[in-house]
Amino acid sequence: MTLDPVLARVDENLDEALDRLLALLRIPSISTDPAYKGDCDKAADWLVADLQSIGFDASKRPTPGHPMVVAHYDGEGPHVLFYGHYDVQPVDPLNLWDNDPFDPQIEETPAGKVIRGRGSSDDKGQLMTFVEACRAWKAVHGTLPCKITMFFEGEEESGSPSLTPFMEENRDELTADIALICDTGLYDEKTPSIVTQLRGLLGEELTITGPDKDLHSGMYGGLAMNPARVLAKVIAALHDDTGRITIPDFYEGVPELSNELAAAWDDLRFDEKAFLGEVGLSIPAGEEGRRPLEMIWSRPTCEVNGMTSGYTGDGFKTVLPSKASAKISFRLVGTQDPHAIRENFRKMVEDMIPADCSVAWAEHGASPAGQMTTTHPAFDQARQALSDEWPNAAAYVGCGGSIPIAGYFKDILDMDAMLIGFGKDDDQIHSPNEKYDLSSFHKGIRSWVRILDGMTG
Amino acid sequence: MTLDPVLARVDENLDEALDRLLALLRIPSISTDPAYKGDCDKAADWLVADLQSIGFDASKRPTPGHPMVVAHYDGEGPHVLFYGHYDVQPVDPLNLWDNDPFDPQIEETPAGKVIRGRGSSDDKGQLMTFVEACRAWKAVHGTLPCKITMFFEGEEESGSPSLTPFMEENRDELTADIALICDTGLYDEKTPSIVTQLRGLLGEELTITGPDKDLHSGMYGGLAMNPARVLAKVIAALHDDTGRITIPDFYEGVPELSNELAAAWDDLRFDEKAFLGEVGLSIPAGEEGRRPLEMIWSRPTCEVNGMTSGYTGDGFKTVLPSKASAKISFRLVGTQDPHAIRENFRKMVEDMIPADCSVAWAEHGASPAGQMTTTHPAFDQARQALSDEWPNAAAYVGCGGSIPIAGYFKDILDMDAMLIGFGKDDDQIHSPNEKYDLSSFHKGIRSWVRILDGMTG
Repeated sequence: MTLDPVLARVDENLDEALDRLLALLRIPSISTDPAYKGDCDKAADWLVADLQSIGFDASKRPTPGHPMVVAHYDGEGPHVLFYGHYDVQPVDPLNLWDNDPFDPQIEETPAGKVIRGRGSSDDKGQLMTFVEACRAWKAVHGTLPCKITMFFEGEEESGSPSLTPFMEENRDELTADIALICDTGLYDEKTPSIVTQLRGLLGEELTITGPDKDLHSGMYGGLAMNPARVLAKVIAALHDDTGRITIPDFYEGVPELSNELAAAWDDLRFDEKAFLGEVGLSIPAGEEGRRPLEMIWSRPTCEVNGMTSGYTGDGFKTVLPSKASAKISFRLVGTQDPHAIRENFRKMVEDMIPADCSVAWAEHGASPAGQMTTTHPAFDQARQALSDEWPNAAAYVGCGGSIPIAGYFKDILDMDAMLIGFGKDDDQIHSPNEKYDLSSFHKGIRSWVRILDGMTG
Repeated sequence: MTLDPVLARVDENLDEALDRLLALLRIPSISTDPAYKGDCDKAADWLVADLQSIGFDASKRPTPGHPMVVAHYDGEGPHVLFYGHYDVQPVDPLNLWDNDPFDPQIEETPAGKVIRGRGSSDDKGQLMTFVEACRAWKAVHGTLPCKITMFFEGEEESGSPSLTPFMEENRDELTADIALICDTGLYDEKTPSIVTQLRGLLGEELTITGPDKDLHSGMYGGLAMNPARVLAKVIAALHDDTGRITIPDFYEGVPELSNELAAAWDDLRFDEKAFLGEVGLSIPAGEEGRRPLEMIWSRPTCEVNGMTSGYTGDGFKTVLPSKASAKISFRLVGTQDPHAIRENFRKMVEDMIPADCSVAWAEHGASPAGQMTTTHPAFDQARQALSDEWPNAAAYVGCGGSIPIAGYFKDILDMDAMLIGFGKDDDQIHSPNEKYDLSSFHKGIRSWVRILDGMTG
């Protein structure tokens, strides 16, 4: 029996595991904001030290941005690479947090205990489930069940600029038999999932300039073009009345759902009323005639992530603004080409701008959608192991988010990836009051112990 | 000869007058921001002391907001009330100022010396032209040529909430034979003007709520309605393709330009290429088929003054925002009813909001347009006095801005008002690097001396 004593060890040592996670959560490693560069470095150092303490040959590896953490354990059997990210999202608006986002707390809630704080679910809490599974295994058996490489990045929330160059430069060191990625969620609280399709992401920022300075809206209003009006026309034109995106050739490469997957997803009996009700909404906002699960898993989207123009403080200022800008992202599916879409989007916008206004662009990433091959035996082994731990059997699902790392593992290292995670829909990742259920953390650790056992038993 | 020695005194003492103006400009009396409440008070105190020093019975008068300054000089002859405002606009974006907005400087420019700093043109510099005219007159003649009341408010840039209650409570004290208002501009650098029509102003702020918290755009994008998309549709729908505003009944009460005024304005040979070129634009953005001068003087407008949603910091955040908000103002003409327009605007927006989203409203003022009666003899006297001081004869013009005080003088105190000011189109009022030409200040003081002489001679 290799499994049961390790599971018992996990249960007995949960408090210590939690203390370690809280220590990591206290480091404000916000990657997109240069003010937190030192804290990203500190989070990487913390992980190196922790991995060394359980026998890994761990090191912090410099990049032009935030460092990578790479750690090796040279065990017997298959070679598994585990990926996670130690950076977190910004925390604004800070006034909507009930507590300091970087002073994590264990809270009692009607649904059980939760770990509250930025990064608790995305992705520090998830990442530590695997680390704690290894720690428990090592404590019980004195060794790990296979050869393991840990690979943690610190730029996932800011477009991962250093990731592919680093993978290309360290191809041999990072190539394993299979990659495990822990940055996704449960299907529901009783049903674990393995994600087999992921949407891609194209990020664009545009700034429209009308007058070359802010003007008095009484003196110039009516005669001078207002860039906020131009931006609103652009954004309003991106969807038609049926919710379809209007960029030319946008839907090239968007596949119809297979009958098989359509049936499997219908079996999940997705409750869109509950899903939307959880966030105060009730009407699916995507393309007419599509299943709600398609809207979030297998249809492309266009969303405004941020928009600003003119005076946005308290009170009123009758300014006619010089500039209006927006951050817009597209979720991509199938074989949609992010670079072609970027080009068509920019051309469409440029054609809409009055001749005496101008538009400037900034890129924020471009990654295609991902479709996993599930023929590697690890998929069946993991599906069985997850089904043993949780009340319901594990499901193969889609994911609306974009985790380009899975595609990079395939393209650069020719390695299949399994996306397994324990987040919940109400974790409020990227939002104020982010949390991770204590049960996600605890059963997540136990799940990895079972998966490692299943893959090596 | 009462006039020439006073004009000579103005010329000789210009440096001292300038020092006083700079002292007033150093007080950051931003009325819309509660952080500057103490500074508004300080500016009022400064004015009280200055007016006392030239023989006025001056006092600071409390209101629920910022205080009024009222000062009386009990001379012989007609009773003139002079109005100005000592509060200023906010200064953001601060990084676009070449110098501290509240450390005013005299700068040499190719067009001559300018006084650079917030409030230099709007309205402290203008207000002080009249005060300095009185000071010079008093210094030369030992008395002032008529009975004068000064009336300065500190809330003009924040909707003047205390103004009409104060006027109603102090009706007898404030009623004079005619009001003089110094908050407008020259027609051009050679041509002084008296404004005889002013646009009204309706200010509205709307906040659209979609989801009840910020969401991850990958997890919810496609299924959850994005309030920034809703707001963009609302703003885009406010103008049709010909530049007309689409709110139902919006144009009720908008008069056609009389043949007489159309001819007079055509005589002004307004150079819209130069006017727009000054701010980096070239295409008139108002209603098709309208004269550019109509667009800014006699047609109503709808402008976005500010707009915000989601993440607007550096970098990128794939958030699906909970809220999107905009500050929108309408300039009104003729007999357009601001309250009816507010109602129709809100109804139109509410009809566009998806059933699971909501909209909240804030009011920021509602004042109708103003049309001056020019039969009072002071109009002809002032027009002659201005024509004597400047290279070209004075013109009766329209003004795109909204100076509701003129209407209040008529409605509450049954008093005609003359709007005479010396600002220039390139003064950048409400914008970074606001300035007032030294020639505006100097010839402005001389103009008031001539007007006082003309009205009492």
